[in-house]
Amino acid sequence: MNFLEKLLTASRQQNSLLCVGLDPEQSRLPAELRDLPVAAATVRFCREIIDATAPYACAFKPNLAFFEVLGPAGMQALLEVIHAIPAHIPIIADAKRGDIGSTARNYAAAIFDTYGFDAVTVNPYLGFDSVEPFLAYRERGIILLCRTSNPGARDFQDLLVQDAAGQTQPLYEAIAHRIQEWNGLTGNCGLVVGATYPRELKAIRALCPDLPILVPGVGSQGGDLEASVMAGVDADGERAIISVSRGILYASHGQDYAQKAQAQARLLRDQINRARNRPA
Amino acid sequence: MNFLEKLLTASRQQNSLLCVGLDPEQSRLPAELRDLPVAAATVRFCREIIDATAPYACAFKPNLAFFEVLGPAGMQALLEVIHAIPAHIPIIADAKRGDIGSTARNYAAAIFDTYGFDAVTVNPYLGFDSVEPFLAYRERGIILLCRTSNPGARDFQDLLVQDAAGQTQPLYEAIAHRIQEWNGLTGNCGLVVGATYPRELKAIRALCPDLPILVPGVGSQGGDLEASVMAGVDADGERAIISVSRGILYASHGQDYAQKAQAQARLLRDQINRARNRPA
Repeated sequence: MNFLEKLLTASRQQNSLLCVGLDPEQSRLPAELRDLPVAAATVRFCREIIDATAPYACAFKPNLAFFEVLGPAGMQALLEVIHAIPAHIPIIADAKRGDIGSTARNYAAAIFDTYGFDAVTVNPYLGFDSVEPFLAYRERGIILLCRTSNPGARDFQDLLVQDAAGQTQPLYEAIAHRIQEWNGLTGNCGLVVGATYPRELKAIRALCPDLPILVPGVGSQGGDLEASVMAGVDADGERAIISVSRGILYASHGQDYAQKAQAQARLLRDQINRARNRPA
Repeated sequence: MNFLEKLLTASRQQNSLLCVGLDPEQSRLPAELRDLPVAAATVRFCREIIDATAPYACAFKPNLAFFEVLGPAGMQALLEVIHAIPAHIPIIADAKRGDIGSTARNYAAAIFDTYGFDAVTVNPYLGFDSVEPFLAYRERGIILLCRTSNPGARDFQDLLVQDAAGQTQPLYEAIAHRIQEWNGLTGNCGLVVGATYPRELKAIRALCPDLPILVPGVGSQGGDLEASVMAGVDADGERAIISVSRGILYASHGQDYAQKAQAQARLLRDQINRARNRPA
């Protein structure tokens, strides 16, 4: 089963487009875990979040930065977190790697062979040959940054670029076009498009009707859930992966953090479902 | 001493613009190290390369992909490799990270606090707020991808973008302009510009006369050493960091690999010096 099939299967089984982002920030771990060594506390926290939210999630998305900052022990923690995720739920490495040649091959091998992820976020700025070593893993998902959710996305992604015919379009649209072409070669591409720009998300969905789109930025980053879902889903109300991290992980700072995370995941799952079932 | 001062000091002491890239690919390690566990073989290989080439290097550049692929033990190996580098020689993390908000803060903390690098390569595609958490480490160097050395660099980096006045320039030049502005705020920026495009390198040097420029792609990627050095140095023949990895690491596959790496580093150092002392 390739990534897209695994995603759609999990999404239908759980009736959910919600991806739970695992961004375990050391300073925000629950007080009761602070006596543990930080890598152990991270594993324990993530495991309890996973167990509590798995019934409502179509995917989990560990964010590598929060594990890398803990050094080698953090990467061991990442392995343990990956192993704690139920086998039927796809796991996306939020890594945003981007490099060339043998470096790209080794990043892809790290993500897919060493850690065993089902999909990865990749930065396309270095062009096709930087993405190819990832695309070569046909059964894994390669989710390319297109239009990100932060204010600085305007700095370069929105610049108007000229094509050979002298027509202009924003850079992120030119990139979406190319990714659509790459997907024609390998069939395993996806896009990252931030929830904070539903208009851009809608334009990109029109350009790429079949690609899975990972949509971060709902909640703490201010993205409008309903508008994002309606703009991001495909014609069947699927293939949008609505990712929420802090809004679930830190729903409570008390002992009831797993319980509150579960309630929040269920609430978000249901809000997403209401939005995707609404006529446009 | 900040990164640029440390770089210039090392470069003058060693009379060198040569950066030795540490890309220890498992399948290319010397036969005599293959009986060791791979992480231990990686440390041993890198240590011998470091000891042999340090007299001719202005910087070392470990490439994180080759350590990440070895799992948690690879990150332990990376720490040991970092500790093996003489204290006066700056260490550049070739990581090409790029993310936003708390993720970017944690990547920066991983690179600078957890691993102790002097500088890092960063992908600017996500814009200013993605780079700011790195720039906040004022004494470290933030070396931003501008024009890379691979064929796919043409896919997006060369697209013609329009400014507010309707003038066009390649995207990589627009990015170089912005990085020059960011450097005005924090003074710790640098650029990555591939050796395979000396004409573009020369144009970027003209836009950014004072920034250190990391120039990979000489040797195995086909970049012309002399043309790259002449295009990349500043008015004083400095601030270019000419990076060579495979051409040094794998100069020999026999038992004499460290000796051959040393000879190759000395040769490259001398070739670079002849080029930078040549009248333009």
